[in-house]
Amino acid sequence: TMLKHLLTKIQPGPLTGKKVVITAGPTYEAIDPVRFIANRSSGKMGYALAQAAAEAGADVTLISGPVALTAPIGITFLKVETAQQMYDAVMSHLAQTTVFIGCAAVADYRPADPAPTKLKKSAKDDLSLQLRLNPDIITAVASSGERPELVVGFAAETDDLQHYAQQKLQHKGLDMIAANQVGDGLAFGQDNNALEIFWEGGHKSLLEAPKLEIARELITLITERYHAKNSI
Amino acid sequence: TMLKHLLTKIQPGPLTGKKVVITAGPTYEAIDPVRFIANRSSGKMGYALAQAAAEAGADVTLISGPVALTAPIGITFLKVETAQQMYDAVMSHLAQTTVFIGCAAVADYRPADPAPTKLKKSAKDDLSLQLRLNPDIITAVASSGERPELVVGFAAETDDLQHYAQQKLQHKGLDMIAANQVGDGLAFGQDNNALEIFWEGGHKSLLEAPKLEIARELITLITERYHAKNSI
Repeated sequence: TMLKHLLTKIQPGPLTGKKVVITAGPTYEAIDPVRFIANRSSGKMGYALAQAAAEAGADVTLISGPVALTAPIGITFLKVETAQQMYDAVMSHLAQTTVFIGCAAVADYRPADPAPTKLKKSAKDDLSLQLRLNPDIITAVASSGERPELVVGFAAETDDLQHYAQQKLQHKGLDMIAANQVGDGLAFGQDNNALEIFWEGGHKSLLEAPKLEIARELITLITERYHAKNSI
Repeated sequence: TMLKHLLTKIQPGPLTGKKVVITAGPTYEAIDPVRFIANRSSGKMGYALAQAAAEAGADVTLISGPVALTAPIGITFLKVETAQQMYDAVMSHLAQTTVFIGCAAVADYRPADPAPTKLKKSAKDDLSLQLRLNPDIITAVASSGERPELVVGFAAETDDLQHYAQQKLQHKGLDMIAANQVGDGLAFGQDNNALEIFWEGGHKSLLEAPKLEIARELITLITERYHAKNSI
């Protein structure tokens, strides 16, 4: 990896000179200082993408939620916890970005009113937790005045994969979306993954393989889409 | 550790022949197949207690929520995810137990109606998540027909430590409670800890030290309390 890293600094790769910003992992949304809402993203896919993009010569910024992984060498690394912090980090690192890949599993909602001290168990059998909508990072990126040339999203779905993926591609104004089936031990936390990639007028299936291999294939596809877009 | 483990199998320790059941880590309570409610327990204190009890010669069963730790050697190890699963595992391992230590940060509440497929983001800015009370494991242990001779609880508090700890000691019918201050980077996930131990008519402060040292001191204290109780 170190050798590969040095080589990409000497030999130009397909993304040399291009800035790529990638988000990875879950976000944690505090209920109180002890409890929080999380999700099953391990960050492995996003970290593999950061490595694959660095191998392709890109100047990579990885913005990660809380995970138990070590950042690949030779990249800019930022650790955040909440969706709001991830939103702020992404927005402040968007200038001159060629490719944005939103691979993080960002919480759609956060507790509306997190408690400053640990909540005590009440005598009540039932409680109601009020949630508030988080900012939608990838929609904000895709509609930003500093919009990267290619905005790539992820859709982790338990059902109706293609339908929801193509809906997100359109509604969020993305250039490409990578969809994967989750639930029942699939994808989250696993070392392997399989992706269905959709873009306007195209589709490609990446069959099950180690996440780093899948990441390299996706970076190749992104590079092709980038060149296709810029040769029109 | 291997040598120590072998030695305790040859040389009798203060807990040789005694069965000790310990819970550790957080529980995860599913909102849907992707999202869940968690807490900041790393499991380090519970795993350290399992090691310290094994060193003291005990026959240890460690029942752990999802953590990134490796179980100490020479113990019985059970992995669970939810509070309900932890409750079931504890109750089915209670027979002939001398000491129970409830060190897990068990979720007080779980989503009342977890969704079978990933919830879609609604157009609404605000949502309400209905929660239902989980079984109280340590109260059930302390009032069980198979009640261990010593039931030891933990209280992680952000405020009013002594008050809440002594309240839990009484209300839950415990023999001993170990209280620690959490929040602002204290205790959770850290390698060090400090505990305030309370029992009926007694109190001891364990000053900040590595969790394994704290665990050994607590096991010594538990052994003393066990002998005190059995010599009356």
